[in-house]
Amino acid sequence: MRGIIAKVEEKTTIPVYERTVENVLGAVLASGDLWRIIDLSEEPLPLATAVLKALNELGYIEFNEEILLTKKGKELVEKYGIGKREDYTCRHCQGKTVGFDAFKELLKEFKDIVKNRPQPKHDFDQAYVTPETTIARITLMHTRGDLKNKEVFVLGDDDLTSVALMLSGLPKRIAVLDIDDRLIEFIKRVADEIGYSNVEIFTFDLRKPLPEYALKKFDTFITDPPETVDAVRAFVGRGIATLRGPGCAGYFGITRRESSLDKWREIQRILLNEFNVVITDIIRNFNEYVNWGYEEETRAWELIPVKIKPKHNWYKSYMFRIQTLRGSKGFEGEITAGKELYDDEESSTT
Amino acid sequence: MRGIIAKVEEKTTIPVYERTVENVLGAVLASGDLWRIIDLSEEPLPLATAVLKALNELGYIEFNEEILLTKKGKELVEKYGIGKREDYTCRHCQGKTVGFDAFKELLKEFKDIVKNRPQPKHDFDQAYVTPETTIARITLMHTRGDLKNKEVFVLGDDDLTSVALMLSGLPKRIAVLDIDDRLIEFIKRVADEIGYSNVEIFTFDLRKPLPEYALKKFDTFITDPPETVDAVRAFVGRGIATLRGPGCAGYFGITRRESSLDKWREIQRILLNEFNVVITDIIRNFNEYVNWGYEEETRAWELIPVKIKPKHNWYKSYMFRIQTLRGSKGFEGEITAGKELYDDEESSTT
Repeated sequence: MRGIIAKVEEKTTIPVYERTVENVLGAVLASGDLWRIIDLSEEPLPLATAVLKALNELGYIEFNEEILLTKKGKELVEKYGIGKREDYTCRHCQGKTVGFDAFKELLKEFKDIVKNRPQPKHDFDQAYVTPETTIARITLMHTRGDLKNKEVFVLGDDDLTSVALMLSGLPKRIAVLDIDDRLIEFIKRVADEIGYSNVEIFTFDLRKPLPEYALKKFDTFITDPPETVDAVRAFVGRGIATLRGPGCAGYFGITRRESSLDKWREIQRILLNEFNVVITDIIRNFNEYVNWGYEEETRAWELIPVKIKPKHNWYKSYMFRIQTLRGSKGFEGEITAGKELYDDEESSTT
Repeated sequence: MRGIIAKVEEKTTIPVYERTVENVLGAVLASGDLWRIIDLSEEPLPLATAVLKALNELGYIEFNEEILLTKKGKELVEKYGIGKREDYTCRHCQGKTVGFDAFKELLKEFKDIVKNRPQPKHDFDQAYVTPETTIARITLMHTRGDLKNKEVFVLGDDDLTSVALMLSGLPKRIAVLDIDDRLIEFIKRVADEIGYSNVEIFTFDLRKPLPEYALKKFDTFITDPPETVDAVRAFVGRGIATLRGPGCAGYFGITRRESSLDKWREIQRILLNEFNVVITDIIRNFNEYVNWGYEEETRAWELIPVKIKPKHNWYKSYMFRIQTLRGSKGFEGEITAGKELYDDEESSTT
C-alpha cells in the first residue's frame, strides 16, 4: 500500500491516505465506469484520477472502455479486505431527506419556465443543478422555517433558485445578484412575465464588497461558491454579512469532487472560528448538477485516464445549512484574486 | 417580541433569540400536541417549555388538552408573518438518506433477537433508538465504506448496535463496552447464541481513560454521548482515540432536544479545533428514540406545562459522521465529573 501511495504522491500535492486508495478501489469494485468511480469514491477528481493512473502503472487495473481490476489488482483487494462500495441512497428522495410531493406543481412550472435558460458559461465556472434539486432546496428551506415571509438573498444564481423562490410565493422579498448579465436579464424577464415585483435583481461581482444597503437586511441566503478556500470565504462570508443578525440561516453547496476533506476541514474552521456560525445540516450529494457541455475544455478532461464523456450526472455537492448565533459575523473585505479564486490544486471543472 | 424574550429569559439561562420564539410559534401553528411542538420547534425542551409558559402568561396561547393560540396570539403571528412549521421529511427513509430494502432481513432478525432486551435505566441516562434506526445506522455506515472488513468500536450500547453489527457479518472485529452489566450480559449471550466470536465485550465507565490495548486499533467507532460538552468530549474524544489513524470514521448522535445551537457550536469547535477532525455528514433526526418509560421521573416532566405522556417518539437526534485526517487526535484524559456529566441547563431527560 505504501508503494501505491508514493506513486500517487508523485502525481499530486493533495493529501493521500490509505483510505484514498481504498475508496477508489472500492468504487472500481462497484463500477467500471470512470465517472461513476469518481462519484462513488468521493475523492477529488484530480486525486481519484492520480490514484487510477498509479494503480494502472503498477499493474493493478486496466483501462479499456471499462476500468477493470487485473489479477494482481484482485489479489490486492483480497489482501486488504477492501469492500465494494455500496450505494443504498434512498431511491425516493435521492438522499435529499425531503420528499417531492409538496411542490410537484412548482417543479412543473419551474421546468417549463427555465426551458430557455442561458447555458453554462465556462468563464464564470457555471454549471446548474437539476430542476429537482432546485425544488428540493425550496422544500428543505421551507421545512426549516427559512422562507415563509422571509427576506431571501441569492448570491450567484446559475441555478435560477430565485425563479423557483418567486414561483413559490413564499418569501416576502428576494434579492438576487450574479456576475453574468445573461442570467440577470433572464431572471428580470421571468419576474416581469409572472408579475413578481418584490425582487431586486442586479449584476455584481462578488469579489467586491457588497453595497451598504445589502448588509444586515436579510433572513436567509443561498449561494453556490467556487471551491477554493478564498472563494468560500468570499461567497459564504458575504452571504452571512447580508443577514440581519442571530437566528438567520444560510445554505450553500460544498462538493467532494473538487475538495478534499482536508480542505473541508479548513472551510469548516472558517465557518466556526471566523464567522462564528453553527453548522446545522450537511446533506450528502443533495445538489446534483447537469453535465455542463464544456467538459472537454476543463482540467478534468486532461486528467481523466479514459476520455469518455459522462453518461450520468456525476457532479454532486453536499448541502450545508448554517445558522447565525450571538457573535456571528460575515466577511465584508475586498478580494483581489483573479482566476485563482476558482482554481486550486483540487479543482478540475474550471 | 422584546417583551416575550425578556419573559423567557426570566425562566432560563439558555440563549433566547427572536428565532426561538418564532420556532415555537411556528410549531404551535402546526400542532396542538405538546410533544410534537417541542419536536417541530427544534428548541431544547427547557427552552421550548419556557417559551410556551411565557407566551401563556402574556396571553398568547392557552393550555388545555391541546395548546392553542388565543386571539391575541393569532394577531401576534399575523403581525410577524410567522409561518406554520411544515414537515416535508421523506416518508420512505424518514429523512435518514438511506433506504431500508438492502437490510430488510437483518431488521427482522434484529427485532426478534432484541425482544427481551434490558429496559432503559434512568441511572445511566439510557434510552434506545428504534430497531429501524439501528439498521439504518448499519446501512449508512456500510454505504460509507466504514464496516466491511473493518474493526469497529461501540462505546456505550443501549441501542445494541453491536448486536446488529454481529448479525450483519460485515465487520472483521467488534469491540463493545458499556457501564451497564445487564447490557453487557445480554450482548454476550447473543454473541454466544449466534456463535459470533470476533467480538470483545466489556463493562467500562467512560469517565476513565481507555486501556492501552483499546487505543489506535480500530477503523470505525460509534457512540451516543450524553449531551453536556464534557460528555461529548469524553465519549467522542475517546472514540477518536480508539481509531488507528487518519482516514477512519466516527458516528454519534447530537440532539436539538437537549442542546441549543450555541452548545452545538461549542461541540463543533471541539471537533474541529481540539480533535482536528472533519465533519462529513449531519443528518437531521436520523436517530429516533423509543419513549423510555421513566418520563415522569425526569426534569422534562417537571418543566412541561401540560402533563401528558408523549404519544409519538418525540426524541430524535442528528447523526454526525466525522473522519480523521492528518493531525487528528482523540481525548485520553480522565473525567472526574459525576452526575454533571449528564446534566446541564439544557438537559431534561436525565
